[in-house]
Amino acid sequence: MGTTQLDTVPEPKYWHLRTVLSEALDSEFSVGEILPNERDLAARFGVARATLRQALEQLELEGRLQRRRGVGTTVAPPRMGVAVESEQHAWPGAFGDAWQPIDCTAAVPPAAVADILETVHDEQVLTVRRSRVTHGQPVAAELLYIPASSVPELSGIDAPSGVARARAVLRELQRLELEGQDRAVELGSARAEDAKELDRLPGAPVLVVTTRFLTKGRTAALSVATYRADTCRLTFGDTGGVEIHHDSERRAS
Amino acid sequence: MGTTQLDTVPEPKYWHLRTVLSEALDSEFSVGEILPNERDLAARFGVARATLRQALEQLELEGRLQRRRGVGTTVAPPRMGVAVESEQHAWPGAFGDAWQPIDCTAAVPPAAVADILETVHDEQVLTVRRSRVTHGQPVAAELLYIPASSVPELSGIDAPSGVARARAVLRELQRLELEGQDRAVELGSARAEDAKELDRLPGAPVLVVTTRFLTKGRTAALSVATYRADTCRLTFGDTGGVEIHHDSERRAS
Repeated sequence: MGTTQLDTVPEPKYWHLRTVLSEALDSEFSVGEILPNERDLAARFGVARATLRQALEQLELEGRLQRRRGVGTTVAPPRMGVAVESEQHAWPGAFGDAWQPIDCTAAVPPAAVADILETVHDEQVLTVRRSRVTHGQPVAAELLYIPASSVPELSGIDAPSGVARARAVLRELQRLELEGQDRAVELGSARAEDAKELDRLPGAPVLVVTTRFLTKGRTAALSVATYRADTCRLTFGDTGGVEIHHDSERRAS
Repeated sequence: MGTTQLDTVPEPKYWHLRTVLSEALDSEFSVGEILPNERDLAARFGVARATLRQALEQLELEGRLQRRRGVGTTVAPPRMGVAVESEQHAWPGAFGDAWQPIDCTAAVPPAAVADILETVHDEQVLTVRRSRVTHGQPVAAELLYIPASSVPELSGIDAPSGVARARAVLRELQRLELEGQDRAVELGSARAEDAKELDRLPGAPVLVVTTRFLTKGRTAALSVATYRADTCRLTFGDTGGVEIHHDSERRAS
Protein backbone atom coordinates (compact mmCIF):
# COMPACT_ATOMS: atom_id res chain seq x y z
CA MET A 1 0.00 0.00 0.00
CA GLY A 2 1.59 3.27 -1.11
CA THR A 3 1.12 6.61 0.59
CA THR A 4 -0.68 8.34 -2.26
CA GLN A 5 -1.17 12.06 -1.76
CA LEU A 6 -4.90 12.58 -1.80
CA ASP A 7 -5.14 16.34 -1.46
CA THR A 8 -4.92 17.23 -5.14
CA VAL A 9 -7.74 14.99 -6.36
CA PRO A 10 -10.99 16.74 -7.39
CA GLU A 11 -13.41 13.85 -6.58
CA PRO A 12 -14.46 13.38 -2.93
CA LYS A 13 -11.49 12.24 -0.84
CA TYR A 14 -13.29 9.24 0.64
CA TRP A 15 -14.19 8.08 -2.83
CA HIS A 16 -10.68 8.32 -4.14
CA LEU A 17 -9.40 6.60 -1.02
CA ARG A 18 -11.94 3.82 -1.54
CA THR A 19 -10.52 3.22 -5.02
CA VAL A 20 -6.93 3.20 -3.76
CA LEU A 21 -7.87 0.84 -0.92
CA SER A 22 -9.80 -1.40 -3.30
CA GLU A 23 -6.73 -1.79 -5.50
CA ALA A 24 -4.59 -2.51 -2.44
CA LEU A 25 -7.05 -5.23 -1.38
CA ASP A 26 -6.69 -6.86 -4.79
CA SER A 27 -2.93 -6.75 -4.89
CA GLU A 28 -1.67 -6.99 -1.32
CA PHE A 29 -4.26 -8.72 0.85
CA SER A 30 -5.82 -12.13 0.83
CA VAL A 31 -9.30 -13.22 1.92
CA GLY A 32 -9.69 -13.30 5.69
CA GLU A 33 -6.67 -11.12 6.35
CA ILE A 34 -7.06 -8.47 9.04
CA LEU A 35 -6.49 -4.85 7.96
CA PRO A 36 -4.24 -2.55 10.01
CA ASN A 37 -6.20 -0.49 12.54
CA GLU A 38 -7.93 2.75 11.59
CA ARG A 39 -5.33 5.03 13.15
CA ASP A 40 -2.47 3.39 11.25
CA LEU A 41 -4.41 3.32 7.99
CA ALA A 42 -5.41 6.97 8.30
CA ALA A 43 -1.79 7.96 8.96
CA ARG A 44 -0.56 5.91 6.04
CA PHE A 45 -2.85 7.59 3.54
CA GLY A 46 -2.64 11.02 5.12
CA VAL A 47 -6.39 11.30 5.66
CA ALA A 48 -8.63 12.08 8.63
CA ARG A 49 -10.15 9.16 10.52
CA ALA A 50 -13.62 10.25 9.34
CA THR A 51 -12.54 10.05 5.69
CA LEU A 52 -11.01 6.63 6.23
CA ARG A 53 -14.15 5.41 7.91
CA GLN A 54 -16.30 6.57 4.99
CA ALA A 55 -14.10 4.69 2.53
CA LEU A 56 -14.21 1.55 4.69
CA GLU A 57 -18.00 1.80 4.90
CA GLN A 58 -18.19 1.93 1.12
CA LEU A 59 -16.05 -1.16 0.74
CA GLU A 60 -18.23 -2.88 3.31
CA LEU A 61 -21.36 -2.00 1.28
CA GLU A 62 -19.69 -3.52 -1.76
CA GLY A 63 -18.95 -6.73 0.11
CA ARG A 64 -15.18 -6.26 -0.03
CA LEU A 65 -14.65 -5.84 3.70
CA GLN A 66 -16.26 -7.29 6.79
CA ARG A 67 -16.20 -5.56 10.14
CA ARG A 68 -16.50 -7.93 13.04
CA ARG A 69 -16.57 -7.09 16.71
CA GLY A 70 -13.49 -8.15 18.57
CA VAL A 71 -11.74 -9.13 15.33
CA GLY A 72 -11.48 -5.90 13.35
CA THR A 73 -11.83 -5.33 9.65
CA THR A 74 -11.09 -8.33 7.43
CA VAL A 75 -10.99 -8.90 3.69
CA ALA A 76 -14.27 -10.57 2.73
CA PRO A 77 -14.54 -13.66 0.57
CA PRO A 78 -16.50 -13.24 -2.69
CA ARG A 79 -20.26 -13.09 -2.17
CA MET A 80 -22.23 -16.31 -2.44
CA GLY A 81 -24.73 -16.65 -5.26
CA VAL A 82 -28.06 -17.52 -3.63
CA ALA A 83 -30.82 -18.64 -6.00
CA VAL A 84 -34.02 -16.69 -5.35
CA GLU A 85 -35.94 -17.78 -8.39
CA SER A 86 -35.73 -20.65 -10.81
CA GLU A 87 -37.77 -21.15 -13.96
CA GLN A 88 -40.54 -23.09 -12.21
CA HIS A 89 -42.99 -21.36 -9.93
CA ALA A 90 -43.69 -23.39 -6.80
CA TRP A 91 -45.34 -23.02 -3.40
CA PRO A 92 -43.08 -22.54 -0.40
CA GLY A 93 -42.21 -25.94 1.03
CA ALA A 94 -42.45 -27.71 -2.34
CA PHE A 95 -39.90 -30.41 -3.15
CA GLY A 96 -36.40 -28.96 -3.44
CA ASP A 97 -37.16 -25.81 -1.43
CA ALA A 98 -33.97 -24.45 0.17
CA TRP A 99 -35.78 -23.08 3.24
CA GLN A 100 -36.07 -24.82 6.61
CA PRO A 101 -39.22 -24.24 8.68
CA ILE A 102 -38.57 -23.15 12.28
CA ASP A 103 -41.96 -22.48 13.79
CA CYS A 104 -45.47 -21.30 13.16
CA THR A 105 -47.56 -18.86 15.16
CA ALA A 106 -50.84 -17.04 14.70
CA ALA A 107 -50.17 -13.31 14.75
CA VAL A 108 -51.58 -10.00 13.60
CA PRO A 109 -49.37 -9.01 10.64
CA PRO A 110 -48.17 -5.47 9.85
CA ALA A 111 -50.88 -3.32 8.28
CA ALA A 112 -49.10 -3.36 4.89
CA VAL A 113 -49.15 -7.17 4.90
CA ALA A 114 -52.83 -7.29 5.87
CA ASP A 115 -53.61 -4.97 2.94
CA ILE A 116 -51.95 -7.32 0.47
CA LEU A 117 -53.60 -10.40 1.99
CA GLU A 118 -56.92 -8.53 2.06
CA THR A 119 -57.49 -9.51 5.67
CA VAL A 120 -59.01 -7.26 8.31
CA HIS A 121 -56.34 -5.25 10.15
CA ASP A 122 -56.68 -6.94 13.53
CA GLU A 123 -57.14 -10.44 12.13
CA GLN A 124 -54.49 -13.00 12.94
CA VAL A 125 -52.83 -14.91 10.13
CA LEU A 126 -50.61 -17.98 10.23
CA THR A 127 -46.99 -16.87 10.33
CA VAL A 128 -44.40 -19.45 9.42
CA ARG A 129 -40.81 -18.57 10.23
CA ARG A 130 -38.15 -20.20 8.05
CA SER A 131 -34.42 -19.90 7.66
CA ARG A 132 -32.01 -20.55 4.87
CA VAL A 133 -28.45 -21.79 5.31
CA THR A 134 -25.87 -21.95 2.51
CA HIS A 135 -22.40 -23.47 2.94
CA GLY A 136 -23.05 -23.72 6.67
CA GLN A 137 -23.81 -20.00 7.04
CA PRO A 138 -27.21 -18.46 7.74
CA VAL A 139 -27.97 -16.31 4.69
CA ALA A 140 -31.63 -15.42 5.04
CA ALA A 141 -34.62 -15.32 7.40
CA GLU A 142 -38.21 -15.39 6.24
CA LEU A 143 -41.68 -14.64 7.55
CA LEU A 144 -44.36 -16.33 5.50
CA TYR A 145 -47.87 -14.94 6.07
CA ILE A 146 -50.78 -17.24 5.25
CA PRO A 147 -54.41 -16.32 5.94
CA ALA A 148 -56.42 -19.14 7.50
CA SER A 149 -58.70 -19.01 4.44
CA SER A 150 -55.82 -20.31 2.28
CA VAL A 151 -55.57 -23.54 4.29
CA PRO A 152 -59.22 -24.33 5.19
CA GLU A 153 -58.57 -28.00 5.91
CA LEU A 154 -55.72 -27.41 8.32
CA SER A 155 -56.27 -29.42 11.46
CA GLY A 156 -55.39 -27.81 14.75
CA ILE A 157 -55.13 -31.10 16.59
CA ASP A 158 -52.22 -33.00 15.04
CA ALA A 159 -49.55 -30.33 15.26
CA PRO A 160 -50.56 -27.36 17.37
CA SER A 161 -47.21 -25.54 17.25
CA GLY A 162 -43.54 -25.48 16.29
CA VAL A 163 -41.86 -27.04 13.28
CA ALA A 164 -44.51 -29.72 12.91
CA ARG A 165 -47.20 -27.04 12.70
CA ALA A 166 -45.16 -25.11 10.11
CA ARG A 167 -44.81 -28.27 8.01
CA ALA A 168 -48.55 -28.98 8.25
CA VAL A 169 -49.37 -25.46 7.03
CA LEU A 170 -46.94 -25.71 4.08
CA ARG A 171 -48.37 -29.13 3.20
CA GLU A 172 -51.91 -27.74 3.10
CA LEU A 173 -50.75 -24.86 0.90
CA GLN A 174 -49.66 -27.31 -1.82
CA ARG A 175 -53.32 -28.26 -2.33
CA LEU A 176 -54.02 -24.90 -3.95
CA GLU A 177 -53.30 -24.24 -7.57
CA LEU A 178 -50.46 -21.70 -7.88
CA GLU A 179 -51.52 -19.30 -10.60
CA GLY A 180 -48.62 -16.90 -10.48
CA GLN A 181 -46.11 -15.17 -8.32
CA ASP A 182 -44.29 -11.88 -8.35
CA ARG A 183 -41.36 -10.49 -6.45
CA ALA A 184 -39.87 -7.22 -5.34
CA VAL A 185 -36.32 -6.67 -4.10
CA GLU A 186 -35.31 -3.64 -2.06
CA LEU A 187 -32.75 -2.47 0.44
CA GLY A 188 -33.69 -2.68 4.11
CA SER A 189 -32.24 -2.94 7.57
CA ALA A 190 -32.39 -6.14 9.62
CA ARG A 191 -35.05 -6.25 12.33
CA ALA A 192 -33.81 -7.36 15.74
CA GLU A 193 -35.18 -10.89 15.40
CA ASP A 194 -33.82 -11.43 11.89
CA ALA A 195 -30.47 -9.90 12.78
CA LYS A 196 -30.03 -12.45 15.55
CA GLU A 197 -30.77 -15.30 13.20
CA LEU A 198 -28.41 -13.90 10.56
CA ASP A 199 -25.63 -13.34 13.10
CA ARG A 200 -25.65 -9.59 12.51
CA LEU A 201 -26.45 -6.49 14.55
CA PRO A 202 -29.95 -5.01 14.30
CA GLY A 203 -30.07 -2.50 11.48
CA ALA A 204 -27.44 -4.20 9.31
CA PRO A 205 -28.12 -3.75 5.56
CA VAL A 206 -30.23 -6.54 4.12
CA LEU A 207 -31.88 -7.26 0.80
CA VAL A 208 -35.60 -7.69 1.37
CA VAL A 209 -37.36 -9.98 -1.10
CA THR A 210 -41.16 -9.83 -0.98
CA THR A 211 -42.96 -12.59 -2.88
CA ARG A 212 -46.66 -12.80 -3.51
CA PHE A 213 -48.12 -16.23 -4.27
CA LEU A 214 -51.34 -15.90 -6.25
CA THR A 215 -54.33 -18.16 -6.56
CA LYS A 216 -57.76 -17.29 -7.96
CA GLY A 217 -56.71 -13.67 -8.39
CA ARG A 218 -55.80 -13.13 -4.75
CA THR A 219 -52.70 -13.44 -2.60
CA ALA A 220 -52.80 -16.84 -0.91
CA ALA A 221 -49.44 -16.38 0.82
CA LEU A 222 -46.91 -13.59 1.22
CA SER A 223 -43.23 -14.13 1.92
CA VAL A 224 -40.97 -11.43 3.34
CA ALA A 225 -37.41 -12.76 3.17
CA THR A 226 -34.39 -10.92 4.50
CA TYR A 227 -31.01 -11.78 2.93
CA ARG A 228 -27.64 -10.70 4.31
CA ALA A 229 -26.53 -7.96 1.92
CA ASP A 230 -22.86 -8.36 2.87
CA THR A 231 -22.45 -12.01 1.91
CA CYS A 232 -25.20 -12.67 -0.66
CA ARG A 233 -25.71 -12.04 -4.33
CA LEU A 234 -29.27 -12.96 -5.27
CA THR A 235 -29.60 -14.89 -8.51
CA PHE A 236 -32.58 -15.15 -10.84
CA GLY A 237 -32.90 -17.45 -13.81
CA ASP A 238 -31.90 -20.93 -14.79
CA THR A 239 -28.18 -20.90 -15.29
CA GLY A 240 -26.95 -20.35 -11.79
CA GLY A 241 -26.20 -16.66 -11.69
CA VAL A 242 -23.47 -14.35 -12.75
CA GLU A 243 -20.09 -14.17 -11.07
CA ILE A 244 -19.13 -10.55 -11.20
CA HIS A 245 -17.93 -7.94 -8.77
CA HIS A 246 -19.19 -4.43 -9.18
CA ASP A 247 -16.26 -2.97 -7.32
CA SER A 248 -13.96 -3.14 -10.35
CA GLU A 249 -13.87 0.28 -11.96
CA ARG A 250 -14.27 0.44 -15.68
CA ARG A 251 -10.93 1.08 -17.31
CA ALA A 252 -11.81 3.60 -20.00
CA SER A 253 -10.05 3.39 -23.33
CA MET B 1 -43.03 12.61 19.21
CA GLY B 2 -42.77 11.78 22.89
CA THR B 3 -39.62 11.85 24.98
CA THR B 4 -39.40 8.13 25.66
CA GLN B 5 -36.75 7.20 28.16
CA LEU B 6 -34.41 4.88 26.29
CA ASP B 7 -31.95 3.91 29.00
CA THR B 8 -33.82 0.92 30.35
CA VAL B 9 -34.25 -0.92 27.04
CA PRO B 10 -32.10 -4.04 26.54
CA GLU B 11 -31.86 -3.90 22.71
CA PRO B 12 -29.28 -1.53 21.17
CA LYS B 13 -30.33 2.07 21.81
CA TYR B 14 -30.07 3.12 18.19
CA TRP B 15 -32.35 0.28 17.22
CA HIS B 16 -34.99 1.12 19.76
CA LEU B 17 -34.73 4.78 18.76
CA ARG B 18 -35.19 3.78 15.12
CA THR B 19 -38.46 2.04 16.02
CA VAL B 20 -39.69 5.02 18.03
CA LEU B 21 -38.75 7.41 15.23
CA SER B 22 -40.36 5.15 12.63
CA GLU B 23 -43.67 5.26 14.52
CA ALA B 24 -43.38 9.03 14.85
CA LEU B 25 -42.88 9.31 11.08
CA ASP B 26 -46.08 7.34 10.51
CA SER B 27 -48.18 9.30 12.95
CA GLU B 28 -46.83 12.85 13.02
CA PHE B 29 -45.03 13.63 9.80
CA SER B 30 -46.06 13.78 6.17
CA VAL B 31 -44.05 13.04 3.05
CA GLY B 32 -41.56 15.77 2.21
CA GLU B 33 -41.66 17.31 5.68
CA ILE B 34 -38.30 18.38 7.12
CA LEU B 35 -37.28 16.79 10.42
CA PRO B 36 -36.00 18.92 13.31
CA ASN B 37 -32.21 19.22 13.33
CA GLU B 38 -30.02 16.54 14.91
CA ARG B 39 -29.25 18.52 18.06
CA ASP B 40 -32.93 19.10 18.81
CA LEU B 41 -33.87 15.51 18.02
CA ALA B 42 -31.08 14.11 20.19
CA ALA B 43 -32.15 16.32 23.09
CA ARG B 44 -35.78 15.36 22.67
CA PHE B 45 -35.07 11.63 22.91
CA GLY B 46 -32.31 11.96 25.49
CA VAL B 47 -29.71 10.23 23.32
CA ALA B 48 -26.22 11.07 22.12
CA ARG B 49 -25.83 12.56 18.65
CA ALA B 50 -24.00 9.40 17.52
CA THR B 51 -26.96 7.23 18.55
CA LEU B 52 -29.39 9.50 16.78
CA ARG B 53 -27.29 9.45 13.64
CA GLN B 54 -27.22 5.63 13.64
CA ALA B 55 -31.00 5.51 13.88
CA LEU B 56 -31.37 8.07 11.08
CA GLU B 57 -28.98 6.07 8.90
CA GLN B 58 -31.11 2.98 9.41
CA LEU B 59 -34.27 4.79 8.40
CA GLU B 60 -32.42 6.11 5.37
CA LEU B 61 -31.42 2.52 4.39
CA GLU B 62 -35.07 1.55 4.66
CA GLY B 63 -36.09 4.37 2.37
CA ARG B 64 -38.06 6.20 5.07
CA LEU B 65 -35.83 9.27 5.21
CA GLN B 66 -33.84 11.22 2.67
CA ARG B 67 -30.88 13.33 3.59
CA ARG B 68 -30.25 16.11 1.16
CA ARG B 69 -27.49 18.67 1.26
CA GLY B 70 -28.67 22.14 2.06
CA VAL B 71 -32.18 20.90 2.84
CA GLY B 72 -31.75 18.55 5.78
CA THR B 73 -33.51 15.29 6.53
CA THR B 74 -36.94 14.88 4.96
CA VAL B 75 -39.61 12.19 5.10
CA ALA B 76 -39.26 10.13 1.91
CA PRO B 77 -42.15 9.24 -0.37
CA PRO B 78 -42.82 5.49 -0.80
CA ARG B 79 -40.30 3.79 -3.07
CA MET B 80 -41.15 3.43 -6.74
CA GLY B 81 -41.68 -0.02 -8.17
CA VAL B 82 -39.29 -0.35 -11.12
CA ALA B 83 -39.81 -3.39 -13.35
CA VAL B 84 -36.54 -5.25 -13.88
CA GLU B 85 -37.96 -8.35 -15.47
CA SER B 86 -41.17 -9.25 -17.22
CA GLU B 87 -42.23 -12.68 -18.42
CA GLN B 88 -40.68 -12.28 -21.87
CA HIS B 89 -36.93 -12.38 -22.38
CA ALA B 90 -35.75 -9.75 -24.84
CA TRP B 91 -32.54 -8.13 -26.03
CA PRO B 92 -31.69 -4.69 -24.69
CA GLY B 93 -33.18 -2.09 -27.00
CA ALA B 94 -36.10 -4.30 -28.05
CA PHE B 95 -39.53 -2.71 -28.45
CA GLY B 96 -40.85 -1.45 -25.12
CA ASP B 97 -37.44 -1.24 -23.43
CA ALA B 98 -37.48 1.37 -20.64
CA TRP B 99 -33.83 2.36 -21.13
CA GLN B 100 -32.56 5.32 -23.14
CA PRO B 101 -29.20 5.00 -24.92
CA ILE B 102 -26.75 7.84 -24.19
CA ASP B 103 -23.56 6.92 -25.97
CA CYS B 104 -21.31 4.13 -27.13
CA THR B 105 -17.56 3.79 -26.78
CA ALA B 106 -14.99 1.07 -27.32
CA ALA B 107 -13.26 0.36 -24.01
CA VAL B 108 -11.34 -2.30 -22.15
CA PRO B 109 -13.85 -3.66 -19.61
CA PRO B 110 -13.05 -4.68 -16.00
CA ALA B 111 -11.31 -8.05 -15.79
CA ALA B 112 -14.41 -9.67 -14.25
CA VAL B 113 -16.49 -8.55 -17.25
CA ALA B 114 -13.88 -9.81 -19.72
CA ASP B 115 -13.97 -13.21 -17.98
CA ILE B 116 -17.73 -13.50 -18.46
CA LEU B 117 -17.58 -12.33 -22.07
CA GLU B 118 -14.63 -14.66 -22.66
CA THR B 119 -12.64 -11.88 -24.29
CA VAL B 120 -8.91 -11.36 -23.85
CA HIS B 121 -8.15 -9.06 -20.90
CA ASP B 122 -6.83 -6.10 -22.90
CA GLU B 123 -9.37 -6.40 -25.69
CA GLN B 124 -11.79 -3.52 -26.16
CA VAL B 125 -15.51 -4.22 -26.24
CA LEU B 126 -18.40 -2.00 -27.27
CA THR B 127 -19.74 -0.25 -24.20
CA VAL B 128 -23.19 1.26 -24.48
CA ARG B 129 -24.21 3.62 -21.70
CA ARG B 130 -27.93 3.89 -21.04
CA SER B 131 -30.11 5.58 -18.46
CA ARG B 132 -33.53 4.96 -17.07
CA VAL B 133 -35.95 7.63 -15.92
CA THR B 134 -39.20 6.95 -14.05
CA HIS B 135 -41.71 9.67 -13.16
CA GLY B 136 -39.18 12.28 -14.30
CA GLN B 137 -36.49 11.02 -11.91
CA PRO B 138 -33.28 9.21 -12.92
CA VAL B 139 -33.54 5.78 -11.29
CA ALA B 140 -30.79 3.76 -12.90
CA ALA B 141 -27.61 3.91 -14.99
CA GLU B 142 -26.35 1.02 -17.09
CA LEU B 143 -23.19 -0.11 -18.82
CA LEU B 144 -23.89 -2.68 -21.49
CA TYR B 145 -20.81 -4.61 -22.64
CA ILE B 146 -20.95 -6.18 -26.11
CA PRO B 147 -17.99 -7.94 -27.73
CA ALA B 148 -17.47 -6.99 -31.38
CA SER B 149 -18.01 -10.67 -32.24
CA SER B 150 -21.67 -10.36 -31.16
CA VAL B 151 -22.37 -7.71 -33.81
CA PRO B 152 -20.22 -8.78 -36.77
CA GLU B 153 -22.19 -6.78 -39.33
CA LEU B 154 -21.97 -3.51 -37.45
CA SER B 155 -20.84 -0.78 -39.79
CA GLY B 156 -18.42 1.80 -38.45
CA ILE B 157 -19.27 4.33 -41.12
CA ASP B 158 -22.88 5.34 -40.59
CA ALA B 159 -22.75 6.21 -36.92
CA PRO B 160 -19.24 6.36 -35.52
CA SER B 161 -20.17 7.61 -32.03
CA GLY B 162 -22.79 8.89 -29.62
CA VAL B 163 -26.45 7.95 -29.35
CA ALA B 164 -26.69 6.99 -33.02
CA ARG B 165 -23.84 4.52 -32.56
CA ALA B 166 -25.50 3.07 -29.46
CA ARG B 167 -28.73 2.58 -31.39
CA ALA B 168 -26.89 0.90 -34.28
CA VAL B 169 -25.23 -1.55 -31.86
CA LEU B 170 -28.53 -2.41 -30.17
CA ARG B 171 -30.17 -2.87 -33.55
CA GLU B 172 -27.48 -5.33 -34.64
CA LEU B 173 -27.88 -7.25 -31.39
CA GLN B 174 -31.52 -8.03 -32.24
CA ARG B 175 -30.32 -10.17 -35.16
CA LEU B 176 -29.03 -12.82 -32.76
CA GLU B 177 -31.30 -15.43 -31.28
CA LEU B 178 -31.67 -14.85 -27.53
CA GLU B 179 -31.43 -18.27 -25.92
CA GLY B 180 -31.64 -17.29 -22.30
CA GLN B 181 -30.76 -14.72 -19.71
CA ASP B 182 -29.96 -14.73 -16.03
CA ARG B 183 -29.66 -12.05 -13.42
CA ALA B 184 -27.99 -11.32 -10.13
CA VAL B 185 -28.92 -8.55 -7.69
CA GLU B 186 -26.56 -7.30 -5.02
CA LEU B 187 -25.80 -4.29 -2.88
CA GLY B 188 -23.13 -1.92 -4.14
CA SER B 189 -21.95 1.66 -3.94
CA ALA B 190 -22.38 4.12 -6.81
CA ARG B 191 -19.29 4.78 -8.90
CA ALA B 192 -18.51 8.44 -9.48
CA GLU B 193 -19.91 8.49 -13.01
CA ASP B 194 -23.12 6.64 -12.11
CA ALA B 195 -23.60 8.75 -8.99
CA LYS B 196 -23.57 11.92 -11.08
CA GLU B 197 -26.19 10.54 -13.42
CA LEU B 198 -28.35 9.37 -10.50
CA ASP B 199 -28.04 12.72 -8.72
CA ARG B 200 -26.31 11.12 -5.73
CA LEU B 201 -22.87 11.34 -4.11
CA PRO B 202 -20.24 8.75 -5.09
CA GLY B 203 -20.52 5.73 -2.82
CA ALA B 204 -24.28 6.04 -2.22
CA PRO B 205 -25.96 2.63 -1.75
CA VAL B 206 -27.21 1.17 -5.01
CA LEU B 207 -28.73 -2.11 -6.12
CA VAL B 208 -26.53 -3.59 -8.82
CA VAL B 209 -28.33 -5.81 -11.32
CA THR B 210 -26.05 -7.87 -13.55
CA THR B 211 -27.74 -9.52 -16.54
CA ARG B 212 -26.18 -12.00 -18.89
CA PHE B 213 -27.73 -12.40 -22.36
CA LEU B 214 -26.96 -15.80 -23.78
CA THR B 215 -26.73 -17.05 -27.33
CA LYS B 216 -25.18 -20.29 -28.58
CA GLY B 217 -24.02 -21.13 -25.06
CA ARG B 218 -21.99 -17.97 -24.59
CA THR B 219 -22.60 -14.47 -23.21
CA ALA B 220 -23.39 -12.20 -26.17
CA ALA B 221 -23.95 -9.12 -23.99
CA LEU B 222 -23.57 -8.25 -20.33
CA SER B 223 -25.50 -5.49 -18.59
CA VAL B 224 -24.39 -3.94 -15.29
CA ALA B 225 -27.22 -1.70 -14.12
CA THR B 226 -27.08 0.46 -11.02
CA TYR B 227 -30.41 1.40 -9.41
CA ARG B 228 -30.84 3.99 -6.67
CA ALA B 229 -31.42 1.96 -3.54
CA ASP B 230 -33.10 4.82 -1.72
CA THR B 231 -35.96 5.40 -4.16
CA CYS B 232 -36.36 2.09 -6.01
CA ARG B 233 -37.99 -1.23 -5.32
CA LEU B 234 -37.08 -3.66 -8.10
CA THR B 235 -39.96 -5.79 -9.32
CA PHE B 236 -39.87 -9.17 -11.03
CA GLY B 237 -42.79 -10.98 -12.60
CA ASP B 238 -45.89 -10.16 -14.54
CA THR B 239 -48.29 -8.48 -12.16
CA GLY B 240 -46.53 -5.24 -11.48
CA GLY B 241 -44.83 -5.82 -8.17
CA VAL B 242 -45.70 -5.85 -4.54
CA GLU B 243 -46.48 -2.73 -2.55
CA ILE B 244 -45.07 -3.40 0.88
CA HIS B 245 -42.78 -1.63 3.29
CA HIS B 246 -40.39 -3.69 5.30
CA ASP B 247 -40.08 -1.05 7.97
CA SER B 248 -43.30 -2.08 9.66
CA GLU B 249 -42.43 -4.29 12.60
CA ARG B 250 -44.42 -7.46 13.02
CA ARG B 251 -46.91 -7.02 15.80
CA ALA B 252 -46.64 -10.35 17.61
CA SER B 253 -49.78 -11.86 19.01
